[in-house]
This record gives sequence, structure tokens and C-alpha cells, in this order.
Amino acid sequence: MSKPIRIIQYGLGAIGRAAASLVLDRPGLELVGAIDCDPKLVGQDFGLVLGLNRKLGIAVTNNLGATLSRAKADVVIHCTTSSFVEAADQITEIVRAGAHCVTSCEEALFPYYRHKTAAEKLHDLCVQKRVAVVGTGVNPGLVMDTLALFLTLASQRIDFVRVTRVVDAGTRREALQRKVGAGMSEAEFNKRNQHRKVGHVGLTDSLVFLADGLGWTLDEINESVAPVIADKPLKTDFFTVSKGQVTGVRQFARGIHRGQEVLTFELQMYVGAPNPRDMIEVAGKPPLRLVIEGGVPGDLATPAILVNSLSRLVECPPGLHTMRTLGLPRMSL
Amino acid sequence: MSKPIRIIQYGLGAIGRAAASLVLDRPGLELVGAIDCDPKLVGQDFGLVLGLNRKLGIAVTNNLGATLSRAKADVVIHCTTSSFVEAADQITEIVRAGAHCVTSCEEALFPYYRHKTAAEKLHDLCVQKRVAVVGTGVNPGLVMDTLALFLTLASQRIDFVRVTRVVDAGTRREALQRKVGAGMSEAEFNKRNQHRKVGHVGLTDSLVFLADGLGWTLDEINESVAPVIADKPLKTDFFTVSKGQVTGVRQFARGIHRGQEVLTFELQMYVGAPNPRDMIEVAGKPPLRLVIEGGVPGDLATPAILVNSLSRLVECPPGLHTMRTLGLPRMSL
Repeated sequence: MSKPIRIIQYGLGAIGRAAASLVLDRPGLELVGAIDCDPKLVGQDFGLVLGLNRKLGIAVTNNLGATLSRAKADVVIHCTTSSFVEAADQITEIVRAGAHCVTSCEEALFPYYRHKTAAEKLHDLCVQKRVAVVGTGVNPGLVMDTLALFLTLASQRIDFVRVTRVVDAGTRREALQRKVGAGMSEAEFNKRNQHRKVGHVGLTDSLVFLADGLGWTLDEINESVAPVIADKPLKTDFFTVSKGQVTGVRQFARGIHRGQEVLTFELQMYVGAPNPRDMIEVAGKPPLRLVIEGGVPGDLATPAILVNSLSRLVECPPGLHTMRTLGLPRMSL
Repeated sequence: MSKPIRIIQYGLGAIGRAAASLVLDRPGLELVGAIDCDPKLVGQDFGLVLGLNRKLGIAVTNNLGATLSRAKADVVIHCTTSSFVEAADQITEIVRAGAHCVTSCEEALFPYYRHKTAAEKLHDLCVQKRVAVVGTGVNPGLVMDTLALFLTLASQRIDFVRVTRVVDAGTRREALQRKVGAGMSEAEFNKRNQHRKVGHVGLTDSLVFLADGLGWTLDEINESVAPVIADKPLKTDFFTVSKGQVTGVRQFARGIHRGQEVLTFELQMYVGAPNPRDMIEVAGKPPLRLVIEGGVPGDLATPAILVNSLSRLVECPPGLHTMRTLGLPRMSL
């Protein structure tokens, strides 16, 4: 029996707490630290924060450096931000302390495109410190990117790829409903949209991950985010949406090569979205059409994906990895 | 620009010829030899065998050893047999000559279960000769095994997995229609079935690949192959099936753990099978259901998968690999 993997959970929002709970369930994994900036959590026992009926003997701290040096963790599960720029500083500190890191940061799926210099710098540091880092989750991480790239294994020739994810935001957690603008006025949505403060982060990251995996150079990438307007009153556990208010988003990312749209990524995430699903269509030889009926539920699957990636992470060569370089994605205990 | 990968095509049946044709289409790959035991092909120019309007300057031979030593190939694409025992002798000769090998041999998907000693011996030889070998294709290789294992990335907990492939054999090549027994009497089918001479090879190999990938130990594996009987006359491009004759097969492989069936693999492959599809259902947390509508067409996809695996094969560590250890499956040029 090999020694358990010692894990710090960094970021105690819904996804971080779910990941930590899964760590507690899994043989071979040991939770050794918990970090969050929320003053209401700092100092509390992590077991109580997780809603367990027992203490874990792990006090939540807001000090990454001190926790890293005390806990002797092998890996940090990092769930604090969607922004690679913000994440990179935190991950750099983790790497400097000699710990591996799996992050749910959406922009870390394929940082080599948008944040090339910072990504390469972090990669070099990983190599120097002999640790591995990867960004993953359900989206980005699985349904709109790694699964699409995987499916192309069956392709003799590809003309274009269309990836569609439809999520009924009404079935999701409060933070996600807020993120997609449920219950906002259209004017407020548009104002936030101008500052990129609404909608899903990561659609373009999924697109460039796939393009790079296929060796395709894109001349142009177009993104759009539009509100979906309620045509009747809607109610979720967290929000009331009146007719005419925003119920969520419809987003596109499009990859253009020599004037042709070769990649189309569409995300619908709004309260009441019909026929939720993940769909990958590859036009080419042969044509392929894959559907995950109902769609992979992010609130359960993202924590699973973070935790299922740990054993591959600690075994792979050092570096800032992507889901393409981490080995075959799978559940692993 | 790196040097092209030099390739010998070994086995010039439908899949082998399709793989070789794809090699000719792809930049970075170079066809340097062709081997088959059919006396009608030996000595012919391979371009003519492939139905091209031009010669390739490659004469088909029936001599593996001589071709290996002459052609200085990097990789052999091996498409001669479904039997690992038969394939192992041929692949051993390939490995001894220092060439990598990707094989469509169904039983080579996961030989570490049924042919453990021979597989480990071949692995050791690969390591010694510093080459890599892998068995792949659409089935086994993609839809019933590697894709199922991949999907479990999203799983917190798995109770059981059910994998179903339905193929309308009427749309497939003659060899496959013959293999499933199209047009046979039921008595003849049953006689051949007793000698395992009918139906698909590889269902159990897919099952043990998945079980091993999940770290599941099975106490028992049950296999069954049954004829599907035509309830009306059917006609394909190659066979006429009268009412009451066999139109194809329905096969099961079942994996039992502590008295519970935890893996159910079902393959329907018969002329006129309705709703062809590949389907993976994971019961657990969360439940997942993935469908490839129409199913991945083997005649196009298996050659693609063999050729798409080449660039990963030549870059991975030496050994007898499986689809789990070869890196992320994908189209690669």
C-alpha cells in the first residue's frame, strides 16, 4: 500500500467543499489543510464547514504560505477563481512550496494561448520544482474540449467541429444562476457584459484547447455573449425571474481558419433551457455525433474530475500540464 | 520539420488497405512496405492493390523478416488476425527488428488478462528493444472500452456500467457480414459458435480493459453469443437471408463482483438492426448516459484510429501499451 496523497483544499466555495468531501470518501487520499479568504470561515474546524457532524482537526486558515509549510501536502486542489492571472500568483506560491496543483480555474485549461508568457514561466517553475499543475473541471475540462478531442480519434478527415452544451440553470447552484444573470434586467446584464462580468468563463479556452490539439492554427476567434429573456415568469430555489427579465445566457465562440468557420462552440445556460445536453458533432469522414443526454452535471462532476485527476497528476512528468498531456482521463482511486 | 514516420502495412484485407490509403494521404507518414500471405497479391505493386491509378514502387511481399530488414520502417500497422496468440508471434518478430507496432488484433486490446504471461514477455521484449506496441481499433479500442473509461472521469461513485453497441451489419463489409453469420442456418451457426468461429472477437477484452482501468477485480466473467433470426427475407450487397435464417449475432459479456453484475457489455450486430448506436450508461453519482447516434462506423474509423495512434506510439515510453497508457487518444497528423 503506497502512502496516501496529502491534500490541501484551497477555496471553500461549493466546488471546493464538494471536492474536499470527496477526498474524505476516497481511500488513498488524506485531507491535511483548508484555506479560504472568508473571515467567517477562518479558524473554524473544516469538518463543521463541510457540514459533517464531526471535527476533522483541521482549522481553516487564510494563509497559503503557512499552511503549505505546515501541512506537507503533496497536492493542492485550487478552487478560488476563474481568472488565470489571479490563479497564477496563487499557483506559483504552491509550486514554489513543492506541491502539485489541480485547479478548477477555467482559464487554466489551456493558458498557453491567452497567457502564453505567464504559462511558460509557470511551466518552467514546475519543471524546476519537479511538480505538476493542471486546470480541469467539467467545463472547461471535459464535455466541450477533452471529450471532443478524444472523439476525433475516429476521424480520417475533419471539416469542422460543433460543440454544444445546454444547461438548465434552474437546476444548478445559486452562484451559477447569479453568474448567468438570472433575474437581472436586460440593461443590467448588458452593462455587466461590457465588463465581462456575466456568463461562463472558458468557452474560448475550450476552443483553443481543441484547435491546438488538432494542430489547427486559427486566424480569428469570435466570441459573443447574449442574454436569454424570459417569455414567462420563472422561479428557482434562489431567484424569481419576471417576464422580460434575463433568465440566463447564450454564448458562442467561433474559430475561423482561412475565412471558414471550422469550430463553433455554443453554450446555452439559462433557467428553463429545454433538452439539456452535451453534444459534439464532427463533420468529416466519417461524420460523428455524440450526445450526453441531460448533460454532465457540473456541481457533481467538477469535484469528481478534480479528485479523479490527482493520481495521474502526481505521476506525470513535471510541468504545467493540460488535459491532453496528463494521460487518459478516467476515474481513479 | 521532423522526418516522416516510415510505415509497413502488414495484412492487406479491407482494414489494412484502408489504413495504408490513409497513410498515403497524411503528411509526415511514408509507406515503405506491404506484406500479405495471399499469393494473388504477392509481387504486385501495392498502388495497384490499393486501387490507385499509379504504382507506388512497393512490391507486396509475404516475407516479414526480409521486408523489415530492407524497409527500415519505424512502425508496422498490423492487421492480420483477431487472435493474440497468432499476432504475438508476428509482433515479436516486428519488435525484434526494432520497429513499433500498432495492431488491429482484437485480443491485443488488453492481453494482460487472458494472455498474461505472453503479454508480459512481449512487454519485456519491447522495453529491451525500446519500441512500443498497442492494440486498438473502433471495437475494441474506442467505443466500448476507452470511451467508457474516459467518461468515468466525471464519476464520484460508480455502481455499474452498461455498454451497448448496435450495428446494422447490412451496412458493413462482406467479411463482417460473414463473421456474424448472415445467411447461415441456425444449426450451422450453433455448430460454428461451439468452436468460437462466429461473432465478434473482443467483447470480453473490452470488459477487462474497463475493469482493470477502474481497478475493479472481477470474480467471474460470463460470455454468451446467440443468433438473431430473420423474421422476414433480407438482402445485403453480399448475402441473401431467408426468413428463419441467421441475420447476425447478439452477444453479451458480463462482469461479476461479489455476486453482483457490475459490467454489462452488449453487442448487437445483425442485418437490419434498428437504431444503430454506441451507448455508455454509468449508474452512480452522477448517472451518465452517452450516445453516439448511428454508432461509429468501423470500416472508416478503425483505419483512422490505427493511423491516428502512430504519432503517440512513436513518442511514448517503450512497452506493450494499452489505450490507457498511450496518452490522450485523438486525431493526430
